[in-house]
Amino acid sequence: MKQINIGLVGVGTVGGGVVKLLSQELEFLRNDLGIPITLKRIADKVTSRFAELPVGNAICTGNAQDIINDEEIDVVIELVGGMTFAKDLIVSALSKGKHVITANKALIAEQGPAIFELADKNGVSLQFEAAVGGGMPVIKTIREALVGNEITSVKTIINGTCNYILTEMTQKGQLFDAVLKNAQRNGYAETDPTLDIGGGDSGHKVAIMASLIYNGYVPFEKIYIEGITEITKEDIEFAAELGYTIKLLGIINKAPDDDRIDVRVHPTMLHNKHILASVSDVFNAVLLDGNAVGPILLYGRGAGELPTASSVLSDIVDVALNIASGAPRRIPMRYYRHDNELSIKPIDEVETRYYLCFWVADKPKVLASIAALLGEYSISIASVLQKESREESCVPVIMLTHKVLEKNIRAALTAIEKMDYVKKKTRLIRISEEPNVKK
Amino acid sequence: MKQINIGLVGVGTVGGGVVKLLSQELEFLRNDLGIPITLKRIADKVTSRFAELPVGNAICTGNAQDIINDEEIDVVIELVGGMTFAKDLIVSALSKGKHVITANKALIAEQGPAIFELADKNGVSLQFEAAVGGGMPVIKTIREALVGNEITSVKTIINGTCNYILTEMTQKGQLFDAVLKNAQRNGYAETDPTLDIGGGDSGHKVAIMASLIYNGYVPFEKIYIEGITEITKEDIEFAAELGYTIKLLGIINKAPDDDRIDVRVHPTMLHNKHILASVSDVFNAVLLDGNAVGPILLYGRGAGELPTASSVLSDIVDVALNIASGAPRRIPMRYYRHDNELSIKPIDEVETRYYLCFWVADKPKVLASIAALLGEYSISIASVLQKESREESCVPVIMLTHKVLEKNIRAALTAIEKMDYVKKKTRLIRISEEPNVKK
Repeated sequence: MKQINIGLVGVGTVGGGVVKLLSQELEFLRNDLGIPITLKRIADKVTSRFAELPVGNAICTGNAQDIINDEEIDVVIELVGGMTFAKDLIVSALSKGKHVITANKALIAEQGPAIFELADKNGVSLQFEAAVGGGMPVIKTIREALVGNEITSVKTIINGTCNYILTEMTQKGQLFDAVLKNAQRNGYAETDPTLDIGGGDSGHKVAIMASLIYNGYVPFEKIYIEGITEITKEDIEFAAELGYTIKLLGIINKAPDDDRIDVRVHPTMLHNKHILASVSDVFNAVLLDGNAVGPILLYGRGAGELPTASSVLSDIVDVALNIASGAPRRIPMRYYRHDNELSIKPIDEVETRYYLCFWVADKPKVLASIAALLGEYSISIASVLQKESREESCVPVIMLTHKVLEKNIRAALTAIEKMDYVKKKTRLIRISEEPNVKK
Repeated sequence: MKQINIGLVGVGTVGGGVVKLLSQELEFLRNDLGIPITLKRIADKVTSRFAELPVGNAICTGNAQDIINDEEIDVVIELVGGMTFAKDLIVSALSKGKHVITANKALIAEQGPAIFELADKNGVSLQFEAAVGGGMPVIKTIREALVGNEITSVKTIINGTCNYILTEMTQKGQLFDAVLKNAQRNGYAETDPTLDIGGGDSGHKVAIMASLIYNGYVPFEKIYIEGITEITKEDIEFAAELGYTIKLLGIINKAPDDDRIDVRVHPTMLHNKHILASVSDVFNAVLLDGNAVGPILLYGRGAGELPTASSVLSDIVDVALNIASGAPRRIPMRYYRHDNELSIKPIDEVETRYYLCFWVADKPKVLASIAALLGEYSISIASVLQKESREESCVPVIMLTHKVLEKNIRAALTAIEKMDYVKKKTRLIRISEEPNVKK
């Protein structure tokens, strides 16, 4: 049987994991399952990394071009990350008729249309299970398992760093900055954590999910993304008092009577009974709702060397099986359709419930004034919690609203913040709709 | 493009769901995803069922043989259930070179080797995603997503009827018989509930999972299966006092130094913090542990018309895509290997923790006698709870043991039950090891 030759570019954390896992499982895959794969070449510009890895008979090189130029290589695995070198590499590989496997969520989310068009043109596949949810089969479940469903909503905790930070803040009452520093020390956060804590990484992942679900592509820049950097100790404390947990959620919704897709990432208050409220530490979860299947949850480690490598191996075996069975372009349904730009609902037109925390002067009539101003924008208050004074200058007044349009909330806050009794910036956190899955 | 013609046999609950879902999604599958499928024929001996279903242009018949004899039919979907007619039908279809899709867990678990051998011989595929876990992609996840993992353990709540009954007993303090009657009234339990409450249905599902995970087949009759019919109101109450929840679990384990696989189904006490302890009502969950991916949980509706139909559709699209791309026998790895009988560890040699509830005469020295007898069989007690008398004749003495071999427990219980102070049959419930996933 013809050997299927693999070239791997990038042996940092995930790439190193792939080399390790392949060396462990290669005999099982080849002998027991009959998948004729060989890891022929490995490239990394940091050539000192090779010595630490079980590279076996693979030819190691500092120059990724050696892999592109090797006519015998059928599949290129890009695990370099970033937007420039990785894109050039993928473009070169696809142009040479090689299949590509990548974990590069940023590249797929932001440059998807161009690279998928090229894959289509060259009759090869571009696989990316490892780009979303580490070892959880999020892509396979959306594209294959739920192909007979209209997926009506997704709620997901899809960034382990943020979930770790919020869990620590909640369980230990610590401040954001202190937890972040600690997370950096123990390897749960990058030296430059912007993409994680700013919500961009979650944004990339929900963009990819929404693209597959709605059979097109999401223009990434149109997604509303808000990270967790503004979340205070008090937000978490007040949420807990009200029976809620704060999580960074990726949300995808589509109403049957609206062509636009609601895709967004922001801190969200979840009722403590919501199944996602119990997803803690670095764990990730994806809650999908299908018209036939109802709610489905996937839960697991969303990052890390071996969980991510596990998804890369799943892609390797899928592609190898296609080639070996004479159907190299057997691509699962719900592909990333580069010719169908999806329409995104602007955040202003999203309707949801809100937690508002006003920091105001501790004097008469303030509550009445806020309530009156909210009323002017048709904002109906579901509950109020006024706390005793904590600082000399101000007290927190917490309000949970009923469902209201985001643009009304924003206009009301602009009006309220002009009042001289407002002492600090008002905190706004969106509340998730009623739980569709209770514990 | 060549049409792929489907013949569907059986339009009861699941088959009816498939007809409904296909009629809803056919246009999307054909036009948007380009899968050229046609539901050509439908058979059911109860021909009155056709009038209630959106059968479209399908030719309806009371005779399944019409489907077998139709040379144009590429794929036969068997949703009749049972072991006799269903087996004959599948054998006929495979022998004629037709691909088969089934949800028949009993047939696959008990007759797997014969029918998979026939599928292999005829070069066709036999798909069965809907046989395990309703709409959850359990089979796809094991065979495809986790192909690069050694799966070291599975814990699963895989029968909705049992989980509903145990949830109601726990939440409402009701008796088993009352809850079962109620479940039958509202459609959560069959008129003959034996296969569900006796654990056989869960047994079929774990047998299939273990077969795929270990690349062979589990001889079904060697699995230890214990249902929930003996669970008392007091078991549930005492478990709750000790911080545990009782669930019917399917368990699969394999130690690296043992060729035998530990596969069993029995009521299990789970610590309340274990993630499976929160899976309630008719919901199902599968917690898999892979050497690379770590713990992964799938959660969703494990039964019902449309969730199960969703999995059948996933199989239809997979098979159709294989045929359409010229690779009809592109079968995912970790298939049901009919030539590799797996070795099962007998329950006697399983080592676990136990909950024991002795019902004994309320008089001196009884506790000392029980403790001494347990000690004779090297059984070490982790905690004891003696309750005040509830009935005139006896009191419950509850003991949780440390890990011990099942055969020692059984021998000890035989000795203890000979004592004249024992007034009722001793209750034994196995306790799950320490949670590998905490909420």
